Amino acid sequence: MNVVPQALEKLIDDFKRLPGIGQKTATRLALHLLRCPAEEARTMGRDLAGLHEAIKLCSNCFAFSEHDPCDICGDNRRDPAMVCVVEESGDLMAIEKTGVFSGKYHILHGVLSPMDGIGPDELKIEALIKRVHRQQVTEILIATSSTVPGEATAAYLSNRLQGCSGLKVTRLACGIPIGMDIKYADELTLGRAIEARKKA
Amino acid sequence: MNVVPQALEKLIDDFKRLPGIGQKTATRLALHLLRCPAEEARTMGRDLAGLHEAIKLCSNCFAFSEHDPCDICGDNRRDPAMVCVVEESGDLMAIEKTGVFSGKYHILHGVLSPMDGIGPDELKIEALIKRVHRQQVTEILIATSSTVPGEATAAYLSNRLQGCSGLKVTRLACGIPIGMDIKYADELTLGRAIEARKKA
Repeated sequence: MNVVPQALEKLIDDFKRLPGIGQKTATRLALHLLRCPAEEARTMGRDLAGLHEAIKLCSNCFAFSEHDPCDICGDNRRDPAMVCVVEESGDLMAIEKTGVFSGKYHILHGVLSPMDGIGPDELKIEALIKRVHRQQVTEILIATSSTVPGEATAAYLSNRLQGCSGLKVTRLACGIPIGMDIKYADELTLGRAIEARKKA
Repeated sequence: MNVVPQALEKLIDDFKRLPGIGQKTATRLALHLLRCPAEEARTMGRDLAGLHEAIKLCSNCFAFSEHDPCDICGDNRRDPAMVCVVEESGDLMAIEKTGVFSGKYHILHGVLSPMDGIGPDELKIEALIKRVHRQQVTEILIATSSTVPGEATAAYLSNRLQGCSGLKVTRLACGIPIGMDIKYADELTLGRAIEARKKA
C-alpha cells in the first residue's frame, strides 16, 4: 500500500532531483512544507513558477539577471577593461561579497570536461575572445576553481588569450586559507604557499 | 550593489526557511533550478502551490491524506484493534516501509514540550482516548522517538491509557541497531540492550 499521498510524493520527487538531496532529506523538507501554513508553500510555488520568466542571461557577460545588460555590465563606475572569468553565477556572487573586485565579469557556464562532452564550444569562450577585442579589455582574471577541470579550463583560456596583444592574463592566488591551522593544510596547498611566499 | 536578481533572491529566501538549509545550500539549490530547463522549476512550483489543497488530515488517525478516511483507516484488511501511536507522518511512513505492522495508526502531530507551550491539548491525545473506547482497540503500540520529549510523551500516554480496561499498552524495543559495532554503541543504548537481553 502506498501510504504517501500522491501530491506529497510528487513534491518529494521534485526535492530529490536537487543536488545533494536524498530520499530522507526530500521527505523531511516536503513534510515540513505540509506542516507549515499553506501560504508558505504557495509563496515558494509562485517564486519557482516565475523564476525562469523573470531571469535571463545578460547578453554581454552571461550572468543571470532581470535586465539586459545586467546591473554590473550597465554600471559605468566599474572598470570595463578588467574582466573576471568565472565558472558559474554562484562564483560571481562569492567574489562580489568580498567587495575587492571593481571590474566586470564573464560567466563561462561550466568547465571543460571532455568526458561529459563539454568542450570549448559548449562554454562562453568565443564570446569572451570577441569581448576582449571589442571592449579593449586589458586584464583577464581567471577565477575558475582550483580543481582539476577548473585548472584545465584556466590553462586552456590562458593559452587561447595569449594571442591578444596588450592583454594581461592573471589567475587567483593559491595559498593557505585565512584562519587555517598550518598543520591541517593539505600538502599541495602548503607547497604552493611556500613557492608563492611573499616578503613579510 | 545587489548582484543577485530579485526573483532568485526570493527563491533563496524560500529555501532558507526550510529546516537544515542555510544561505550556501539555499543559493546552490536555487541556482541549480535556474540552470535546469524551465519546466523543472515550473513543475515543482505547481506541486508546491497545490500541496495544501490536495492533502488534508484523516479525521480518524490524523495522517496526511488525499482522502478521508485515509487509505490505511479505510483498509478492512488492517487490524483496527491494534493502533500504533507516532509523533509525525514521517514516522508512519518509516514504519510502513518495514512491512511488519498491520494495524492502524494515530498521529499525535508533535510531542509534549512544556517549554514550547505544547501540552496534551495541543496534541491529538483526547481523540486517541475516544478512539480507544469507540473502536474497541485492544493494543496501543507507542512509537514515539526515544528522545527525552518522546519518552516523556510515551510516559504520559501510558499513564492516561491505564484506565482503559482490557487495553495492552506497548512500546518499541530499545537496543543495538542492526549492523552496529558494539564498541560504537552509546552506553545508554548498550545498557538497555543488556537489561532487555533475550534467549539466543
